[in-house]
Amino acid sequence: MRAIATREDIRDVILDAADRLLARYGYKKMTVEDLAQEVGIGKGTIYLHFPSKEEVVLSHVDRIVERLKVKLLAIARDDALAPAERLRLMLVERVLFRFDSVQHYTESLSDLLAALRPGLLARRERHFQEESRIIAEVLRAGRRAGLFHFHDAHAAARTLLLATNSLLPYSLSTRELGEREDVEREASRIVQLLLHGLLARADAPPKPEGRRSK
Amino acid sequence: MRAIATREDIRDVILDAADRLLARYGYKKMTVEDLAQEVGIGKGTIYLHFPSKEEVVLSHVDRIVERLKVKLLAIARDDALAPAERLRLMLVERVLFRFDSVQHYTESLSDLLAALRPGLLARRERHFQEESRIIAEVLRAGRRAGLFHFHDAHAAARTLLLATNSLLPYSLSTRELGEREDVEREASRIVQLLLHGLLARADAPPKPEGRRSK
Repeated sequence: MRAIATREDIRDVILDAADRLLARYGYKKMTVEDLAQEVGIGKGTIYLHFPSKEEVVLSHVDRIVERLKVKLLAIARDDALAPAERLRLMLVERVLFRFDSVQHYTESLSDLLAALRPGLLARRERHFQEESRIIAEVLRAGRRAGLFHFHDAHAAARTLLLATNSLLPYSLSTRELGEREDVEREASRIVQLLLHGLLARADAPPKPEGRRSK
Repeated sequence: MRAIATREDIRDVILDAADRLLARYGYKKMTVEDLAQEVGIGKGTIYLHFPSKEEVVLSHVDRIVERLKVKLLAIARDDALAPAERLRLMLVERVLFRFDSVQHYTESLSDLLAALRPGLLARRERHFQEESRIIAEVLRAGRRAGLFHFHDAHAAARTLLLATNSLLPYSLSTRELGEREDVEREASRIVQLLLHGLLARADAPPKPEGRRSK
């Protein structure tokens, strides 16, 4: 273990505290003062790292997606798995990782989503683009191996994301989404249908393998 | 034309007025008094038909889905079209019909969604079940013809709906969803992949044709 706390460590500790307070108080009731007290630092120190309560919570959402991306990349580059299996795991993971990340403050999620809507929408678009790049990587690998059949890897990746987006705890709280096992089953079904649609078949024209540039 | 206005006609006129006022004022600012004035009737007459402003707007949402169902049923029973083509048209229609129905009050949609959230969520579940029944009808017809390959028609229908749900103007305003042509393109891509996943293939086991009961 390192003996010296870095700037990133302190940010992380603040975000961990935000995660606990979102569960305890909800977004509206949580104050920067509460946060400082939970961490055991002065309010001014919070402001050294984040300009506002809103920014703390948006950074907390960013961190969830950063952690998700680490998981997605590990699956994307796992050569022991077939590309279709990697995609399947990644698409289910993107749904369940988010579900698990917010399920302890499901009660206050609607609050948070309403209050941070514009900031979240802007970030959401960026998060999807980042996820899309990782998915597209696996799609191209599958096409090179003659397993997938599509024209534009980015468009295909976006379609896979959009199709699973309705299961993200963004517009619905996790309570409204249902039990974790329901969400998992629904995500798996969508992914299964979508992957079958991508698979190259004997009866499909073999042309797309030549179009790797997009 | 009929000479006598029926109870349903008056409800329809009130809902038409609500549609215009949602565009003009938004949900929060619109009052039952405004509605009565727009229709040219007394406030009490509105309350004969609807217990509250909330109920007017929820009924307005119901009417959108009722009209959508008429369109979906017409496509579902159009024997001139192959089942896959019917499904494709229906799934794109369910996205675009809703888009078109609310695009003139896109500015105030977030307002409305936040204010009516619990009522909308309950109705949304019922609407999806109704759509699901129509979709399942076409799925079963396609399976009888040996064209589709799946086990449970209701589960498959639900998957098709869920995969296109992220394009509904429910959590996003139509502005946030993008231009109509973008929404149409995205919906078509999702549907294309999903339908390919359903299509029976030479390499797929032919067993599901025998399981028509679900």
